[in-house]
Amino acid sequence: MHHTSMSRRRFLQTTSAAAVWLPTSVRGYSANEVQALFVDGEMQQDISKWELDTPALCVDLDALEGNIAKMQNTTALNGIASRPHAKTHKTPVIAQMQMDTGSVGICVAKVSEAEAMFQNGIDKILLTTTNVTATKIRRAMKLREVCGDFIQATDSPDNARLLSEAAISMNIIADVVVDVDPGGNRTGITPGQPALQLAQLVDQLPGLRLRGLLCYDGGSQHVKGFDQRRSQTLSRLNAASETYDLFNNSGLTTEIFSGGGTGTYNIDHETRGLTDIQVGSYVFMDAQYIDIGGESNNEIYSDFQPALTILTTVLNDQYEGRATTDAGAKACTINRPWSRIKGETGISYSSGSDEFGTIRYESDASRTYKVGDTVELIVSHCDPVVNLYNQMYAIRNDKVEAVWQISARGMSA
Amino acid sequence: MHHTSMSRRRFLQTTSAAAVWLPTSVRGYSANEVQALFVDGEMQQDISKWELDTPALCVDLDALEGNIAKMQNTTALNGIASRPHAKTHKTPVIAQMQMDTGSVGICVAKVSEAEAMFQNGIDKILLTTTNVTATKIRRAMKLREVCGDFIQATDSPDNARLLSEAAISMNIIADVVVDVDPGGNRTGITPGQPALQLAQLVDQLPGLRLRGLLCYDGGSQHVKGFDQRRSQTLSRLNAASETYDLFNNSGLTTEIFSGGGTGTYNIDHETRGLTDIQVGSYVFMDAQYIDIGGESNNEIYSDFQPALTILTTVLNDQYEGRATTDAGAKACTINRPWSRIKGETGISYSSGSDEFGTIRYESDASRTYKVGDTVELIVSHCDPVVNLYNQMYAIRNDKVEAVWQISARGMSA
Repeated sequence: MHHTSMSRRRFLQTTSAAAVWLPTSVRGYSANEVQALFVDGEMQQDISKWELDTPALCVDLDALEGNIAKMQNTTALNGIASRPHAKTHKTPVIAQMQMDTGSVGICVAKVSEAEAMFQNGIDKILLTTTNVTATKIRRAMKLREVCGDFIQATDSPDNARLLSEAAISMNIIADVVVDVDPGGNRTGITPGQPALQLAQLVDQLPGLRLRGLLCYDGGSQHVKGFDQRRSQTLSRLNAASETYDLFNNSGLTTEIFSGGGTGTYNIDHETRGLTDIQVGSYVFMDAQYIDIGGESNNEIYSDFQPALTILTTVLNDQYEGRATTDAGAKACTINRPWSRIKGETGISYSSGSDEFGTIRYESDASRTYKVGDTVELIVSHCDPVVNLYNQMYAIRNDKVEAVWQISARGMSA
Repeated sequence: MHHTSMSRRRFLQTTSAAAVWLPTSVRGYSANEVQALFVDGEMQQDISKWELDTPALCVDLDALEGNIAKMQNTTALNGIASRPHAKTHKTPVIAQMQMDTGSVGICVAKVSEAEAMFQNGIDKILLTTTNVTATKIRRAMKLREVCGDFIQATDSPDNARLLSEAAISMNIIADVVVDVDPGGNRTGITPGQPALQLAQLVDQLPGLRLRGLLCYDGGSQHVKGFDQRRSQTLSRLNAASETYDLFNNSGLTTEIFSGGGTGTYNIDHETRGLTDIQVGSYVFMDAQYIDIGGESNNEIYSDFQPALTILTTVLNDQYEGRATTDAGAKACTINRPWSRIKGETGISYSSGSDEFGTIRYESDASRTYKVGDTVELIVSHCDPVVNLYNQMYAIRNDKVEAVWQISARGMSA
């Protein structure tokens, strides 16, 4: 998809007005200029997304809303809930859309993300990462003081004791889930007896309230092919289900058994006991997920629509077979597969250079680009791309409907 | 390098104070807390870098100052100047250090970077990327209105005519250099007659003032081995030198002939006519540059010291042969080689997962880590890493001396 550069005449008409700047007469709006056009949340004039200064991160509202509705409908049909992971979008407005359509809460990966979400009105938050330093435990407990539905994870007896003593010292009750390792050995405690003993400890320690368990199987989300993906994740989550049984048999609560993700959203409910899925990328989709294949099409995962795109401008078209754009690694990341040009075929895009993107034409390229043309890219991997931008433009029918602050951008601590 | 986790007793002492928070008694400071401890630019108490909340981006001031001094001394000895590229650090304080020690100006890659630098006191700016849209040309011309030493690049006759007409409409004279392609066919005009004709056009067009040319040979900076690197870049820059001759023979100014980078900083002066080098990464160094080898050591490029590090905390040590940290792709990027643990051997680090880093021990690992330990990483590729953080901590002798805003972070437009 593209927008052809304006005629030189049009350019001169618009540039001539620049000394006294008039928004209606200039093609292209910087981020600050677009912001200034909102009054009480209402855009004061029609701005096409093709007029935005680039690189610009855009989310198509019809696609986003459709993706959220599809997830809510599917989880409801499957008898589970969604607890979407906000590490993907880092955007309170989107978290609110998820809550408003039936999600039981959101997940976050970092305590700073939790703080940013709470400061922006989201108050049902599960922090999926165990806090191990005094700084982070203190921050989490301070958040718990003001946020009644804030839940923390723990994955070792030593850590549970620290959480207990911190909670006691602040005179609060902290809600805790046990993080169970799905087999990746990255985070979480070993399922079975170690997890059970940790849960029993949490249940007994003063200042803590056990809420259940979580088991996020990140390693299965991008397995290519629906059958292989289903087989792997159900196998890996089996130990978590057995742990769920151990909790139940010991009289421990399993009110929360959270896990799963976008790649397994229509598989996870087969895991015995699972209450909700921590789906993230489904809101935006990306090239990495498109390639895993779906239940109905083993090559293309089309359950959700690509909603997140980057607009970039062609800067140089002087050299045979290629063109250079203004969106490189700092605007797209270097994740693979590379970003894809929306709606075109036979044209590759790469962002291996920090500042510039490279378009290369194959023999069957559906078009070529001229300097000044705008190119729309489907992002490679949505989470780290979102983390590069301060804001995203919310687009409907190619018009800017809102500018959303990515309030938790850079919140890696 | 590392810091062993505090004792549990110490932890409890510090956590107990959390309800009424006392900075002196809590290990670990969040970014906001460190900021609050500065009054009139003076830190009100000693904070060790090992007390910072993680992930934290740190710059060692002795190493940074040493790198800047070495570059200034080398360019002076070689009879050229430095015009450091601020796309690397995006930090006005560092740009000011470069200016204060003799650089003739700074380079930036984006007009938004130029604006951020100018707003923070830097007023000698060369924008190395050609602006092609009305938005960006207008922004550049508006900057030129207030910044007398702002210079723009152009790489095509059509673009030069647009710049001229924009400058006329705003009643200013815009300073322009011709961007010459070093052979990468990414940006710039073909050297020789095409570049000469463009320079003649710029020289003749009203509203524009020709200042010379630039030719940045990005493709040679990371060639491994000093001799190979020297040979490639001098060969590739030869056409730019011939273009420089053409400018001179045609009576055009060559006051500026800018090019070169950190990998070729002690080679570039051999290019006939070159006036200054656009060195960026030398201030920080990174694992990518360490691996290219130097003149005295073909395996390790040790001309500059690694100054930029990421502090990260071990979150999980339960599984054999590995540990998990809190700095993944969103804190380190996924550039290769991966970040390296400073001062240790036989231990690898990878940041392939968005939220978590992975430590793996080889048989000869110099140590192992426990939960809560802090790990210091030499960054993989400094430019995109800096672009992830809002601020960096300036460290001397392991103490926090300042907190620097990365004012041009995310300025990709």
